[in-house]
Amino acid sequence: MSSTILVIHGPNLNLLGKREPEVYGYLTLEDINQQLTAQAKNSSLTLDTFQSNWEGAIVDRIHQAQNENIKFIIINPAALTHTSVALRDALLGVAIPFIEVHLSNVHAREAFRHQSYLSDKAIGVICGLGVRGYSFALDYAIEKIQSSN
Amino acid sequence: MSSTILVIHGPNLNLLGKREPEVYGYLTLEDINQQLTAQAKNSSLTLDTFQSNWEGAIVDRIHQAQNENIKFIIINPAALTHTSVALRDALLGVAIPFIEVHLSNVHAREAFRHQSYLSDKAIGVICGLGVRGYSFALDYAIEKIQSSN
Amino acid sequence: MSSTILVIHGPNLNLLGKREPEVYGYLTLEDINQQLTAQAKNSSLTLDTFQSNWEGAIVDRIHQAQNENIKFIIINPAALTHTSVALRDALLGVAIPFIEVHLSNVHAREAFRHQSYLSDKAIGVICGLGVRGYSFALDYAIEKIQSSN
Amino acid sequence: MSSTILVIHGPNLNLLGKREPEVYGYLTLEDINQQLTAQAKNSSLTLDTFQSNWEGAIVDRIHQAQNENIKFIIINPAALTHTSVALRDALLGVAIPFIEVHLSNVHAREAFRHQSYLSDKAIGVICGLGVRGYSFALDYAIEKIQSSN
Amino acid sequence: MSSTILVIHGPNLNLLGKREPEVYGYLTLEDINQQLTAQAKNSSLTLDTFQSNWEGAIVDRIHQAQNENIKFIIINPAALTHTSVALRDALLGVAIPFIEVHLSNVHAREAFRHQSYLSDKAIGVICGLGVRGYSFALDYAIEKIQSSN
Amino acid sequence: MSSTILVIHGPNLNLLGKREPEVYGYLTLEDINQQLTAQAKNSSLTLDTFQSNWEGAIVDRIHQAQNENIKFIIINPAALTHTSVALRDALLGVAIPFIEVHLSNVHAREAFRHQSYLSDKAIGVICGLGVRGYSFALDYAIEKIQSSN
Amino acid sequence: MSSTILVIHGPNLNLLGKREPEVYGYLTLEDINQQLTAQAKNSSLTLDTFQSNWEGAIVDRIHQAQNENIKFIIINPAALTHTSVALRDALLGVAIPFIEVHLSNVHAREAFRHQSYLSDKAIGVICGLGVRGYSFALDYAIEKIQSSN
Amino acid sequence: MSSTILVIHGPNLNLLGKREPEVYGYLTLEDINQQLTAQAKNSSLTLDTFQSNWEGAIVDRIHQAQNENIKFIIINPAALTHTSVALRDALLGVAIPFIEVHLSNVHAREAFRHQSYLSDKAIGVICGLGVRGYSFALDYAIEKIQSSN
Amino acid sequence: MSSTILVIHGPNLNLLGKREPEVYGYLTLEDINQQLTAQAKNSSLTLDTFQSNWEGAIVDRIHQAQNENIKFIIINPAALTHTSVALRDALLGVAIPFIEVHLSNVHAREAFRHQSYLSDKAIGVICGLGVRGYSFALDYAIEKIQSSN
Amino acid sequence: MSSTILVIHGPNLNLLGKREPEVYGYLTLEDINQQLTAQAKNSSLTLDTFQSNWEGAIVDRIHQAQNENIKFIIINPAALTHTSVALRDALLGVAIPFIEVHLSNVHAREAFRHQSYLSDKAIGVICGLGVRGYSFALDYAIEKIQSSN
Amino acid sequence: MSSTILVIHGPNLNLLGKREPEVYGYLTLEDINQQLTAQAKNSSLTLDTFQSNWEGAIVDRIHQAQNENIKFIIINPAALTHTSVALRDALLGVAIPFIEVHLSNVHAREAFRHQSYLSDKAIGVICGLGVRGYSFALDYAIEKIQSSN
Amino acid sequence: MSSTILVIHGPNLNLLGKREPEVYGYLTLEDINQQLTAQAKNSSLTLDTFQSNWEGAIVDRIHQAQNENIKFIIINPAALTHTSVALRDALLGVAIPFIEVHLSNVHAREAFRHQSYLSDKAIGVICGLGVRGYSFALDYAIEKIQSSN
Repeated sequence: MSSTILVIHGPNLNLLGKREPEVYGYLTLEDINQQLTAQAKNSSLTLDTFQSNWEGAIVDRIHQAQNENIKFIIINPAALTHTSVALRDALLGVAIPFIEVHLSNVHAREAFRHQSYLSDKAIGVICGLGVRGYSFALDYAIEKIQSSN
Repeated sequence: MSSTILVIHGPNLNLLGKREPEVYGYLTLEDINQQLTAQAKNSSLTLDTFQSNWEGAIVDRIHQAQNENIKFIIINPAALTHTSVALRDALLGVAIPFIEVHLSNVHAREAFRHQSYLSDKAIGVICGLGVRGYSFALDYAIEKIQSSN
Repeated sequence: MSSTILVIHGPNLNLLGKREPEVYGYLTLEDINQQLTAQAKNSSLTLDTFQSNWEGAIVDRIHQAQNENIKFIIINPAALTHTSVALRDALLGVAIPFIEVHLSNVHAREAFRHQSYLSDKAIGVICGLGVRGYSFALDYAIEKIQSSN
Repeated sequence: MSSTILVIHGPNLNLLGKREPEVYGYLTLEDINQQLTAQAKNSSLTLDTFQSNWEGAIVDRIHQAQNENIKFIIINPAALTHTSVALRDALLGVAIPFIEVHLSNVHAREAFRHQSYLSDKAIGVICGLGVRGYSFALDYAIEKIQSSN
Repeated sequence: MSSTILVIHGPNLNLLGKREPEVYGYLTLEDINQQLTAQAKNSSLTLDTFQSNWEGAIVDRIHQAQNENIKFIIINPAALTHTSVALRDALLGVAIPFIEVHLSNVHAREAFRHQSYLSDKAIGVICGLGVRGYSFALDYAIEKIQSSN
Repeated sequence: MSSTILVIHGPNLNLLGKREPEVYGYLTLEDINQQLTAQAKNSSLTLDTFQSNWEGAIVDRIHQAQNENIKFIIINPAALTHTSVALRDALLGVAIPFIEVHLSNVHAREAFRHQSYLSDKAIGVICGLGVRGYSFALDYAIEKIQSSN
Repeated sequence: MSSTILVIHGPNLNLLGKREPEVYGYLTLEDINQQLTAQAKNSSLTLDTFQSNWEGAIVDRIHQAQNENIKFIIINPAALTHTSVALRDALLGVAIPFIEVHLSNVHAREAFRHQSYLSDKAIGVICGLGVRGYSFALDYAIEKIQSSN
Repeated sequence: MSSTILVIHGPNLNLLGKREPEVYGYLTLEDINQQLTAQAKNSSLTLDTFQSNWEGAIVDRIHQAQNENIKFIIINPAALTHTSVALRDALLGVAIPFIEVHLSNVHAREAFRHQSYLSDKAIGVICGLGVRGYSFALDYAIEKIQSSN
Repeated sequence: MSSTILVIHGPNLNLLGKREPEVYGYLTLEDINQQLTAQAKNSSLTLDTFQSNWEGAIVDRIHQAQNENIKFIIINPAALTHTSVALRDALLGVAIPFIEVHLSNVHAREAFRHQSYLSDKAIGVICGLGVRGYSFALDYAIEKIQSSN
Repeated sequence: MSSTILVIHGPNLNLLGKREPEVYGYLTLEDINQQLTAQAKNSSLTLDTFQSNWEGAIVDRIHQAQNENIKFIIINPAALTHTSVALRDALLGVAIPFIEVHLSNVHAREAFRHQSYLSDKAIGVICGLGVRGYSFALDYAIEKIQSSN
Repeated sequence: MSSTILVIHGPNLNLLGKREPEVYGYLTLEDINQQLTAQAKNSSLTLDTFQSNWEGAIVDRIHQAQNENIKFIIINPAALTHTSVALRDALLGVAIPFIEVHLSNVHAREAFRHQSYLSDKAIGVICGLGVRGYSFALDYAIEKIQSSN
Repeated sequence: MSSTILVIHGPNLNLLGKREPEVYGYLTLEDINQQLTAQAKNSSLTLDTFQSNWEGAIVDRIHQAQNENIKFIIINPAALTHTSVALRDALLGVAIPFIEVHLSNVHAREAFRHQSYLSDKAIGVICGLGVRGYSFALDYAIEKIQSSN
C-alpha cells in the first residue's frame, strides 16, 4: 500500500471560487484537489482530500488517519485556526506531521486571525500564496516521505 | 418564487420556554417561529426558520441559502456569538445582509458575552428586547426587501 | 394626564441630515421627532423629545422626568455613550426604564465606540437600524406601558 | 427507575490509551467506563457514558438528560473546556449539577488551558489525578444523590 | 473677611435623599449643607456650597474661588471623578488644597469607579462614611486653616 | 466676506498667565488672542476666538461654524483632548480641517495625556512649543486657505 | 463589660516618627495610641491597640477579637494592604465591621499602592489625612456603636 | 516507622465551622482532622496535620518534613494560594509530591482567587467538594504510597 | 536586461551551518545562495543575494533595488523581523513585492518572535520549512514574474 | 563662529519625493534641505543637515555635535522614533535641545507609530504639517537661540 | 565599635546545598556565611548574618539594624522579592543602603520572578553568579564604607 | 595563545565621563578599559575591548570572536538591551558564555529599561554598581576560565 498524504480543508472552503474571490482566488475546491492529486500521482503517492464545515467531522477524519497509511497532513484550518483546541489535540493525538496552509495572508486581516492554535505544533506555516501554498506544502511532504524511505 | 427571510437560532435555543425563563421568557421556540411566520405572511414574504446546536449545521444552512431566494438573515447566534469565526466566515461568504438578535441584554451578563464575532459585519444588533427583538428585525428585513423591489 | 415617553438625543444629533449622511441618513432630527410623535399619538401616549450637546442639560432633563408622568426613556446618548458616568447615574437615579439606541452600527466603528456606560443598565440596545431603531424602541415602550396598565 | 449519573467525555478522549500515554495514562476509554459503571452499580445507581468529538452532539446529549432521570453529570470537557460557551449554556439550561474532571493537571500545561468556560458553574473541579479523578467525582455524586433521597 | 471653605457636590447629588437611599442615605443635599454650615460657623469660618450637574459650571466655580478668600475645597466629584480631566486641571490651576469625599464606598462598586482623576492631587480621600465623610473633611479643613493662621 | 479662521481654547485656558506659569507661560489668553488676530490681519483673513470651560458650549460653537465662512479651526482642546468624544464628533460633523495645538509637551506629562480623541482626525498636531504652537498653526492655516483660493 | 474598638497597625508602623517623617509625620505610634485611647475613654468605650510586622500575628489578633467584646476594627494595614489575602479572609471570617486607614495618600504613591485587598470589604476608607484619619475613623466607630445600643 | 502523610491547612482555616459556614461547611478543623486520621489508620499509614496563620510556620513545617518519613503532602493553602512564592519554593525544595485542595470552588469567587502559585507544581488540584476534597486527596496519596512499596 | 530577484538574508544568517544546526540546518549561506542561483538560472532570471548584520546596509540595499531591474524580493529578516520599522518602511518605499521567509518555525519559539513588522505588508509568509522555504518563495516569484510578462 | 542648527533625517527619508508622495509630498530631501538652509541664512545662523538609514551613523552624528557649535537639533527620526533607545540616549547624552518632526500625522497611521522613544524628552513635537513642520521647528530654534544671546 | 554589614537570607535559603543543587549550588548557608565572614574580617569590618522563612522576622531584623552600627545590607530576598511590600518598606524605613542578590538568574525562570519590590530602591542588583554574587556585593559594601570614612 | 575575555560596550558608552556623570560616573571608557586590562593581566589572561554605536558592528565583533580564543564575553549592551534581537541571536550563535552589566540601576529608571532581550540567556546580570560591575564580572569570568583549565 502506497503512503498517503491527507489534505484537510476547514469550514467555508467549499465556497472557494464563489466566496470573496478577490481574497481567495477563482479556483474551486474541486479544481485545487485535482491539481494536488495530479501532483502527488507524479510521485507515486496517494492523496486523500477532505473538507467539512464541522469541527467534529474533521477531528474524526484525523483520528481515522491513524488506521490508514497516512504519513503527512496538509491542513488549511480556516476559521478553526483561531478557535479550535480540539483540532490541535487531534493532530497531537495522532502524531502525524503537518503543515498549516492559508490561502490569504492572515497577517493582513483582522487581529483575531493572527492567533493560531496549530502553528506552534506544525512543521511549518505557509500563508498568502494562494493555491501555490498547498502545492508547496505537498512538495515538502513528498520529499520528506521519500527521503525517509 | 417569493423572497424568503431566514431566521437562524443558535445552540440551546431549542430549550426556550424551559430554560431559565426569568432570563429568556416563557415562549417556546415553536411559538416564536409561528409568530414570525405569521408576521412575514402578512407581507407576502416567506419565512424559513432553522435551529441547531451544531455549528457545522448552521454553517451548512447558511451556505445553502445561496441557492434559495433568501434576501435577509435574522440570526440569534447564542453561544456561537462569542466563539465562532466559522459562522462569521459563512455569513461573509454568502454575502446576505443580516441582523444579530439576542433575547437577553448581553451587556448585563458575563464579560465574555460582550464580544461578538458577528456584530461588526451585521446591519445592526438588537438585544434585551426578548421575542420583540426578532419581530423588529423581521419588520426591518421586510421593509428593506420591499423597498428594494 | 396621559403617560409620557421621553426621547433624548445626545450631542451632535442636531446635525442629523447634514452630518455624514452616508453614515447617519438624510432625515433631520425634526423629521425623526415628528415621526415618533405621530407614532406615539396613535397609541394615546404623549411623546416628549429633547436634544442637547451639553451633558449637564441632559442630566437635568432626566432629573426633571421624575416630576412628570414619564414612564419610559428612549435615549441615543451618541458620544456620551462612551464617556459619561453622569448620564448613567442620572438614569439610575430616576429609575425610569430606558432603551439605548444608536443610528449607526457602533460595532463596525472605532474601538472606543464598543464600550458603553449605559448598556448594562438598559432594558435593551438597538444599533445600526437607523431611524427605525427609534421607532422599534418606541413600539416596545408603548407595549410595556400599555401592558402594565 | 433508578437515578442515573451521566459521564461525558469530550473531544479526542476516544484516543485514550493510544494518545500521549505519558500524559493521559494507558487505560482506554472503555476501561474507564467499565470501572465507573461497576462503581455505580455497587451503589444501586445507573451510569450512562457518552463520548463525542462533536460539540453539537454533546450539547444534544445534555439536553436529552432532562427527559431521563439524570441527577448528576460528570464531565471531562477536554478541548471544549476552553472554547465552548454552548456547553456552558447547555449545562446551565438543564440545571443538573456537575463536576468538571481533567485527567492531566491543566495548570501545568499551555496557558490557554488555564481558562475554563465551565468551572465557575461546576460544583467543583478535579484535575491531575488521572482516572481516579473520575471515580472521586462519581463517589461525590453518589453520596449527594443518596443523601438527598 | 473671614476665611471660606468651599464644598462642591458633583452631578446627581441634588437627588440625594431621593435616589437609591439604601446606598446614599436619606438626608437631602440641603440637610447636608445646613449641617456643614453650622459646623463651620462654630469655628468662625464661612462655608460656601455649590452643586451642579454641569462640569463646566463646576470648573467655573473653582476658578472663581481664586478671587474669594477660599482656603480649602471639599469636593464630592461624583460621576466626574472618573471622567473629568477638566476638573483636575481646574483644581491644579487654582492651587487650593482639597479633600475628595465619596458618600458610598467606591471600592465596592463597579470597576470604573475605582479610578479617579483627582485622588493623586488631593490632600486625602474619604469614602464610604456617608455624610460623616463631609464633616470629617470639614474638621480637617478647619484645623488646617486655623493652625496656619 | 473674508474667510475666517476659528481658534478654540478648551477648559481652564482662561487661567493662562495665572496657572502654573512655569508650565504654560506668562501670557494671558487675551495676549495670545491679540497676537493671533494681528497675525491673521496681516493676511487679510479674519480670526475668531472662543474659550469655554463647557464642552457643550464648544460643541455648539463648532456647529455654528458651519453657518459662517470658517475655513479652518485651530483647537487647543486642553483637558477635553483626553475625554471628549463629543468634540471629535462635532469636528467630524462640520468637516472643517483643524490642527490640534498643546502649549505644553503632553508626552512629558501624565500617561492619560498621551491619548487624544482628536489627533487621528486632525491635519496635524503641535505640542510643547508654547504660544508659538498657535502661531505656527495659524501660518499653516493661512497658507492653506490662500493656496486654495 | 464595655464595648471595645480594636486598632490594628500593620508592618513598619512601629517606625512612625522615625521613618520618613515628611511622609508619615512626627508622632510615634505610642503618641497616636494614647490620643486614640483618650478619645475613646471620653465615650466610655475601651480601645485596644495592636501592632505587628508579622502577618500571622495580625491574623491571630483578629481571630481573637471574636472572643472579646470587639464591635469595630480600625486597621491601617500598611504594606499588607496590597499583598495579604489572609488579612482579608480574617476580617471576613470574624465579620466585624472595619474602616481602612492610611496615613499618607496612597493614590499619590507607587502604582502598586493603588490596589487593596481590603477596601471593597471595608465600611469605608480614609487616606492622606495623617493621624486625623485614625481619629475620624474612631469617631465614626463610636457613633455607630452608640447608635446601635 | 510507617510512612506518613502530612495535611497542611493554611491561614484562617482554624475558623472552620465558625466562618461563613454557607461557604465552607459546618465541620470544625478538628472534626476534619479526626476523619482524615481515621481514614489513614485504615491503611496503616500515619497522618500528621498542621494549621497555621503564619506563612513562615508553614514553610518551616514543610522543611521539617524532610527529616520525617513524609511521603505525600495534602495542602489547602487558603489565602496563601494566591500570594506565597515562599510556599511554592518550600514545596519544590523538599520535593515531596502534593495535592492542592480547596473546600470552596475558587473559580466561582473573586478573580484573584483564580491564580495559584502552587497548582502547576502539584500532582493535581481538587476544589469545591468540601471536606470530601481532603478525603479524596488522601485516598489518592494512600494508593500512591502503597503502590510504590 | 533580464529581470532580477533579490534575496536578502538578515542578521546572523552568515552563521548558517555553524550556528545551532539542529534548529537551522547544516547548509551554509553560500550553499543556499548557490542552490537558489541555480534554480533561478533555470528560469532565465537573475538572482542577486545579500546578507548583512547591519540594518542600515539592508535598507540601503533595498533602496538600490529601485535602480536595478528587481521585480521581487525574498527576505529572511531574521532578528529584524521583530524590531525594524526601518525595514518595513524601506520595503514599502520601493514598492517591490516580497515574501517573508523564516527557516525555523517562529511560532514554536519565544513569544517575541511571533510579532513581525513585515508580515502584513508581504505577499505571503513561509516559516519552518528550512531552505525549502526559500526555494518555494523563489518558485512563486519566478511564476509571478513570468506570468506578468 | 556662528551658531549652528542641525537637522537630522532618519531612515528612508532619502526616498522623499519618490516614495508614497500622496503621504509624504513631492519635494525631495535636497529641496527641503535647501529651503531650510535659506531660511537659516536669513537669520545669520548656519544649518547643517544629515540623513542616514543607519542608526549608528545618526548616533555618531549627534555625538559629534558636542564638538561643534550646535545649539539646537531638529530631528525627524522616522522609523527610529518607535524602535531606537540608542537615539534617545544619544540626544540625552549631548544634552542639546531638540524638536521632533514628522511629515505625516503619525496618529492617523499604524498603532505602533503612536509610540515614540523621543517625544517625552523633546522640547516639542510637530506632526502632519509636511515640510512646513521642519520650517516651523526651525523658526522656533532660531528664536530660542537669538533670544538667549 | 567597628562598622557592620548585615547579610539577610530570605525564605528557603536554609535549604541551600540540599535543595535543587543544580540550580543553587552545593554550598550550605553556613558555608556561605563563613566565607563572607572571613572576607569581611580581612577588611576589619564585622559581618552579621540572618536567615528566616518568616517575613515578619526579617522586617524586625531590619528595624533592629537602626540601633546597631550597620552601614550596609546585602539581601537575598528569595521568594519575598516578588511578594513583600513590607520588606520594601522596612528597607526604606531604616534608610540603610542595600544590594539585592540572587544566586540563580531570575530572568531565566518563571515570569513572576522577573518582578521585584526591592530592585528600584537598591543600590544595585546581582543575579545568576551563585555565591560569588554575595562576595561581590560584600566587596562593594566594604569599599563604600571604607571610602566614606 | 592565552585565553581572551571580550568586553563589549554598547551605544553611547563612548560618552562616559562626559554624559550625565551623576548617573554614570566620571571615569571615561578609556579609564575603564585600562583598569580592566590591568585586572586581566594579573591573571595571565588577555582582555579585548570593543565599543560601537552600531548594532551591526557589535554583531560582527561577536561573530569574529568565534575565530579567536575568546572564552567569555562581558557586555554592557546599553540601549540595545531593550531593542536588539540581533544581539541576542549573535550571542546565542557563537555560544560563548556572557554576563550582562549595566552601570546604572536600570530598575530605577524608565519602564522600558526593565526589559532585556539578553538577560534570560546570560550567566548573570549585574546592575547599579558602576564600574565595579565590570570588574566583578571580570573576576567571575577569570575564575570560570581558570577553573575549567
